Amino acid sequence: MTTEGLWLNDEQQRVWRRWLWMNTELPAALHRQLQADSNLSLPDFEVLVQLTDTPEGRVRVLKLARALGWEPSRLSHRIKRMAARNLVRREECLDDGRGAYVVLTPEGRTAIEQAAPAHVQTVKALVFDALTDAELAGFASMVNKVLTRLEAQALSGRS
Amino acid sequence: MTTEGLWLNDEQQRVWRRWLWMNTELPAALHRQLQADSNLSLPDFEVLVQLTDTPEGRVRVLKLARALGWEPSRLSHRIKRMAARNLVRREECLDDGRGAYVVLTPEGRTAIEQAAPAHVQTVKALVFDALTDAELAGFASMVNKVLTRLEAQALSGRS
Repeated sequence: MTTEGLWLNDEQQRVWRRWLWMNTELPAALHRQLQADSNLSLPDFEVLVQLTDTPEGRVRVLKLARALGWEPSRLSHRIKRMAARNLVRREECLDDGRGAYVVLTPEGRTAIEQAAPAHVQTVKALVFDALTDAELAGFASMVNKVLTRLEAQALSGRS
Repeated sequence: MTTEGLWLNDEQQRVWRRWLWMNTELPAALHRQLQADSNLSLPDFEVLVQLTDTPEGRVRVLKLARALGWEPSRLSHRIKRMAARNLVRREECLDDGRGAYVVLTPEGRTAIEQAAPAHVQTVKALVFDALTDAELAGFASMVNKVLTRLEAQALSGRS
């Protein structure tokens, strides 16, 4: 490959590879903890977080898919499984043509309330407890810059 | 919820939420670029990267699934689709009982070689070009700390 000049430099490449690896391993660890302690998968938990973020505990399916960054088919499959466990229910609204809602059930709310403390402790133990204030600030600034660039790209119509 | 003391502080929570959001949006942007410029999905690209990382361009299916952090069923599905496009082929080895290989085809190698420059430019444009040396160093140090904790947890048998 004759792409030397285009490639990341060694340090960037090392960081990028290790970051990709962390982005594989960290969700896997969070998933294992949730499964073991709360019988929820990480995707279950992510759906419940989105629903508890709304005052009414209900979100349009398509809006939820966008918020999670999932394909709608992946979300539909997940909702079906969660509905079978009574964590959420799907509420059709044929009249307004804007699609179904996903609604948090009381059982779903109890499940996330019981799961959250151990999940948060795991996030703290694996990520935040290790960071100095300077590292946290640098990390926050990095995330902000990347999000700013992603938003600029989306606005410029690339998406 | 009476979990105040357990929860992340405001700054940690803000960073965590934005980071989760970045981890949704950044792969989506990389996927869009690959699709538009190279007719590859991001998962296709990730599989090809793993294969080109080996001198022979072949890896056991199960080892590849671990390296990607995917369920084996997800990888099998992906390999089937990539094999239909002749980017990889599956090589059964019934004799040694250790499972099939995924093998990079010449077409697969050409595809990643053609896709890599624009992908790397996108990674640079969205992530690295924005970072100061200090931010890159802080980010690298943060990733190292989290990976160290994940490895320690895996060694302690939590996984």
